[in-house]
Amino acid sequence: MADRQSTPDAATAPCGRCLRARHVSVDTLREAVAYLRHDSQVCRSEGFAAQTRLQLDYGQTTIVATLQTVTGDWLELDEIGLSEAAMQALDVAEGDWVRVHHMPPLESFRHVRGRMYGEPFTHDALTEVVGDIAAGRYSSIHISSFLTACTGNRLSDDEIVSLTQAMVATGKTLTWRADKVMDKHSVGGLPGNRTTPIVVAIVTAQGLVMPKTSSRAITSPAGTADAMATLAPVDLSADEMRRVVEDVGGCVVFGGAANLSPADDILIQVERPLELDSEAQMIASILSKKLAVGATHVLIDIPVGPTTKIRSDHASTLFSERLRTIARALGLDVVTYVCQGNEPVGRGIGPSLEARDVLAVLQNRARAPKDLMAKSVEVAGRILEAGGKALPGEGAQVARRVLISGLAWQQFQRICEAQGGMLEPVVGRHSKPITARHAGVVTTVDNRHLSRVAKLAGAPLATRAGVVFESPIGTVVGAGQPLFTIYAESPGELEYAFEYANRFPDIVCVRA
Amino acid sequence: MADRQSTPDAATAPCGRCLRARHVSVDTLREAVAYLRHDSQVCRSEGFAAQTRLQLDYGQTTIVATLQTVTGDWLELDEIGLSEAAMQALDVAEGDWVRVHHMPPLESFRHVRGRMYGEPFTHDALTEVVGDIAAGRYSSIHISSFLTACTGNRLSDDEIVSLTQAMVATGKTLTWRADKVMDKHSVGGLPGNRTTPIVVAIVTAQGLVMPKTSSRAITSPAGTADAMATLAPVDLSADEMRRVVEDVGGCVVFGGAANLSPADDILIQVERPLELDSEAQMIASILSKKLAVGATHVLIDIPVGPTTKIRSDHASTLFSERLRTIARALGLDVVTYVCQGNEPVGRGIGPSLEARDVLAVLQNRARAPKDLMAKSVEVAGRILEAGGKALPGEGAQVARRVLISGLAWQQFQRICEAQGGMLEPVVGRHSKPITARHAGVVTTVDNRHLSRVAKLAGAPLATRAGVVFESPIGTVVGAGQPLFTIYAESPGELEYAFEYANRFPDIVCVRA
Repeated sequence: MADRQSTPDAATAPCGRCLRARHVSVDTLREAVAYLRHDSQVCRSEGFAAQTRLQLDYGQTTIVATLQTVTGDWLELDEIGLSEAAMQALDVAEGDWVRVHHMPPLESFRHVRGRMYGEPFTHDALTEVVGDIAAGRYSSIHISSFLTACTGNRLSDDEIVSLTQAMVATGKTLTWRADKVMDKHSVGGLPGNRTTPIVVAIVTAQGLVMPKTSSRAITSPAGTADAMATLAPVDLSADEMRRVVEDVGGCVVFGGAANLSPADDILIQVERPLELDSEAQMIASILSKKLAVGATHVLIDIPVGPTTKIRSDHASTLFSERLRTIARALGLDVVTYVCQGNEPVGRGIGPSLEARDVLAVLQNRARAPKDLMAKSVEVAGRILEAGGKALPGEGAQVARRVLISGLAWQQFQRICEAQGGMLEPVVGRHSKPITARHAGVVTTVDNRHLSRVAKLAGAPLATRAGVVFESPIGTVVGAGQPLFTIYAESPGELEYAFEYANRFPDIVCVRA
Repeated sequence: MADRQSTPDAATAPCGRCLRARHVSVDTLREAVAYLRHDSQVCRSEGFAAQTRLQLDYGQTTIVATLQTVTGDWLELDEIGLSEAAMQALDVAEGDWVRVHHMPPLESFRHVRGRMYGEPFTHDALTEVVGDIAAGRYSSIHISSFLTACTGNRLSDDEIVSLTQAMVATGKTLTWRADKVMDKHSVGGLPGNRTTPIVVAIVTAQGLVMPKTSSRAITSPAGTADAMATLAPVDLSADEMRRVVEDVGGCVVFGGAANLSPADDILIQVERPLELDSEAQMIASILSKKLAVGATHVLIDIPVGPTTKIRSDHASTLFSERLRTIARALGLDVVTYVCQGNEPVGRGIGPSLEARDVLAVLQNRARAPKDLMAKSVEVAGRILEAGGKALPGEGAQVARRVLISGLAWQQFQRICEAQGGMLEPVVGRHSKPITARHAGVVTTVDNRHLSRVAKLAGAPLATRAGVVFESPIGTVVGAGQPLFTIYAESPGELEYAFEYANRFPDIVCVRA
């Protein structure tokens, strides 16, 4: 198959390596997948086979995709099937001509191979590697190898600094007019921990700038962005976010749309199934997001407990010190806040139910969860101290006053309006309690199973679904008294979650 | 959705997690992929999302598959699409009910995480890890991480011994009545090197047992099994292979069907894109295949050159020593044969063309490539010495006599008949020479481009296609004289390869 025409414009001039795009409605997450007939001319002559990495060109756009070959006739010989991710990345329409090549050699991977043999990464090497990762040139197995080579306390502080800078450079960097730009991050592992909207309201009510980006749930029943999305729009572009923050001083938005340190998002998707808690990656991940958002002062919340990422006081001390050292080298001022993490914070688990807790605290309702209020005030207080809005040791008092006075609630409403209009979180119409089988005292709570019940009820996709937890450790309960209540949007989902909860009677353990 | 029936038999009793199998004709190589509607009950309630690892049960068979979610209606809500690999592994028919779960946690991966932090693998740890890999429980990214953790000269000899044994244990092990069972392996990187059929014929003509398994091409224009397949059937089961070897003393078959050290095949598919030449993996890979095939004495052919795996004499000495030490611990007698590897061996590149070279040597034809004959005789001679059929230093003379006398050719015909009947290799009907543009001396040959021309002409799928190389380094050529000739099965493929060859005039470089 010689070129039928010699001009290289794939969009208008079919050639031996040009194929018609066809949308294949398969979600492969972020991985671009291309489908070709195994008996097509291009597969035979180029030696393309399943798992070959292809370069696809359309107009000025070039992406890398993984090939899966197709037998049978659901695809024509001159068609190339493209997964959701590939269609989007290439920005192509059905029927457009896409040009196919072997992917050029992945030159930067030599640095990863070198690292396996103990050769430290230079700043330039990490810039090359991370740039290729952000451009989609590393397959998941290349990324896995890179992450593994970085694990085992092998990266020096200098390498982590370079890694962080390389990650920041792959995306947008926001800048603000304020001298001090505040941010917070929780190292994670604690369900429910929905302090962020409250903290942002308190801190910005005192005149500090806090452009907060949050994540959506991936394995949990709700992320901060999922809960916030029931109170106001959160899918803001970087420009919209800038307008909101310039207007009211702060925001709580979904970070995924703003293109901040996109390499981090890619790395995390491979770290998760490997369950790698590489300290180097964790530090680079946290700090790159904060630098990209333009923060100058960051509070890192480190819950320590049996189910959290950092499991001992000793480990938290070492981690805090290293984090601060590296942050300093990057020009970031980091305060760490180490706290106990044995129980969920707040009562609701699921987007709307968590949002309801947030509102109860901001509105000073009697039923507001005390633990959520206390933790929010502590965290906000330290940020006020770091931002010069309270004397050392007095931040929590100031924060409490801002909350009790209603100033935080007023400010939160302003933020929601600026993000597109305040919404009323609605909880599921269908609910059913799980009750104590006998009288006694609550001794333990199985957070993992509790989260699972909320997910079976539909959270986070069904935003009104989830669980309200009504029996913290130490609660004295009578037989038949509710331990927790399941909420769902449909009777079917309610039954499904209810049956599961009944199969595990010790999710909340009551000692007689 | 609760179970509609309480018996757990997925084939007859649909349940909330049971879905109808539907064949999706996509080749994902060995990776089992399952397709589910993202809006199906099971995805929503179980929290399955793209890239979730699923356990699929059908009857007594359980496999692990990677999920890709589907939008639109090409799949019904109660259907599960299965890739080729998944259909085969599960041995399921369209419409059968398949039960879906979250994959249980990958316990053995904790050993890999430990290894990243410098904790040596125990024998039991490697048995667990490699067993899970062979069972398909490791995704490609887990395998990549394992391979990376093993690279950088980190594995001790003891760990490599355990790794090899664990790999052997994942598949079949053949046993033979003979005391000595011979085998050979080439460390690779040299095109054309088709000595194996000749060596097996010589060695078994002298009464030694040599059950040789070979591979098919993956990135090259032909593997030994591809070339041999044009001379006799090669897709023999382990039982058929046993019958052939008991009958005529040897064979040259495709190893993929015999289930020998299957973990090795899985590891190699991830090593290849990573281009990891981990010495530990290479040694374990070679030796596990040899132990599984029941060999007692093995010659390892180590070509040293700029494009081969081992690139210096010093490296080959170190590698040889380590290989022999580890082989000894495994009860295998290994002889290494280090040779120069700067040029292809033989003339043909492509299955039939290489087979023709093999026949020319065995039949003592005048046009037989001298280099192929010389190398075959050297290698066979050393195996004869190791097997006690020649005195040390006299093996090559014995081998040459067996070849010249026609005994090797007779024995080769016997082997082909036993494998299912001798075939005549046929070369492509369409051919075209690439000629010298001016008179001069051939100074260099670009093996990589030469292989590519053969592949563009259709090799190895088109078995009759390829290249005959007619101008070794040092050849004096006149203007217009052929440097190499391209063979193809169709005029289109011939043109495609010819145009490519003309675009790179220095594939064979002629200095005036």
